[in-house]
Amino acid sequence: MSKPRAVILLSGGLDSATVLAIARSQGFDCYALSFDYGQRHKAELDACRRIASDLGAVEHRVLSIGLGEFGGSALTDLDLAVPDKQEPGIPITYVPARNTVFLSLALGYAEVIGAWDIFIGVNAVDYSGYPDCRPAFIKAFEQMANVATKAAVEGEEQLHVRAPLMDLSKADIIRMGARLGVDYGLTVSCYQADEAGRACGICDSCRLRAEGFRAARIADPTPYQKKNTKS
Amino acid sequence: MSKPRAVILLSGGLDSATVLAIARSQGFDCYALSFDYGQRHKAELDACRRIASDLGAVEHRVLSIGLGEFGGSALTDLDLAVPDKQEPGIPITYVPARNTVFLSLALGYAEVIGAWDIFIGVNAVDYSGYPDCRPAFIKAFEQMANVATKAAVEGEEQLHVRAPLMDLSKADIIRMGARLGVDYGLTVSCYQADEAGRACGICDSCRLRAEGFRAARIADPTPYQKKNTKS
Repeated sequence: MSKPRAVILLSGGLDSATVLAIARSQGFDCYALSFDYGQRHKAELDACRRIASDLGAVEHRVLSIGLGEFGGSALTDLDLAVPDKQEPGIPITYVPARNTVFLSLALGYAEVIGAWDIFIGVNAVDYSGYPDCRPAFIKAFEQMANVATKAAVEGEEQLHVRAPLMDLSKADIIRMGARLGVDYGLTVSCYQADEAGRACGICDSCRLRAEGFRAARIADPTPYQKKNTKS
Repeated sequence: MSKPRAVILLSGGLDSATVLAIARSQGFDCYALSFDYGQRHKAELDACRRIASDLGAVEHRVLSIGLGEFGGSALTDLDLAVPDKQEPGIPITYVPARNTVFLSLALGYAEVIGAWDIFIGVNAVDYSGYPDCRPAFIKAFEQMANVATKAAVEGEEQLHVRAPLMDLSKADIIRMGARLGVDYGLTVSCYQADEAGRACGICDSCRLRAEGFRAARIADPTPYQKKNTKS
């Protein structure tokens, strides 16, 4: 009997790599989906390819979308500096409707390959500033998805959006991934990694990641840049 | 006082051109959004540009997305023939999750420009075979959008997805557009238009369009190919 299929949104970071390992451990054939949307660095796309291969994804697709053309985010607008510290409220690194767009494309992919499960590495604890990382958003997207596609309307199954990291701390995520064999040295979390994928060690994402390894009492395999590029 | 802004999904066809005219007539500054997603012909993108200009859109953006890479539709897969006649059920010309993807990108655009209204030319009468053209889908998307974005979560407004053609016949749409000054000679509905935008006159979309002009008792300005390319 063939395994059920799942689409896994893969960003190249620590969280989505863990999600891929979780989906595999739950018995899914994993179809990884990444996006080239005008992000500052391509290091994370290289990381996606390494992770998908290392964790046995059946297929890995990289879709190009012109999301950066809208502007409005430090992650795609090179004129905005990436902030070193987390400010209250919604971070400047927010990309408009990013998870909505990514899940929508995952939904199309799921329909084409006949998958009923979409996995996404959102986490309400660390990213409480992003509206599209909250349980209410995931639930609302799932409800929409079940009236949106040919498969959901004609089929006997329901589409599920799985967010297995939602209530986990960064340390919890790292411990789980380590048990499932994730090589975190392959992952890139840094907002301003260099071309080789080495982290700055300064930005908010780097800080959360380093704290996670310390709290999990697991050695941090992150390659850091020798000279920090703090501006 | 400045006008409120609205995002208009513009495909180059008769319906979305009418929607743009409707939004303008309702007092919105119109920001048109079109997609290059691997469709068979670029004629419709040329049509989008002419329509946006002719109907006074404040801005027109064309976003590239790799939707065609998924395959599974006659509109993006050149190995599948476009059917001449409408079959019962969901048409082969269905693109997986297309309106979900398009509305998601419109949502990102709306957030960046500060718009609370997104207009889409879906129509339950003519396209009853597409799940993502039904009122239930539009409503579910709107509910999702209102928990998805920084603007909706922080703002005092609610986001609205407007589908003003939902219950209109093709003839009703054409009569309304004609009253609002739409030049339908600029629009391309045909699934297999040639590079100059001339219609085949055979496909399902051409048939519906021609019937609409006849029923509306308005002269059909569609440029047709002299020699039909029926395969």
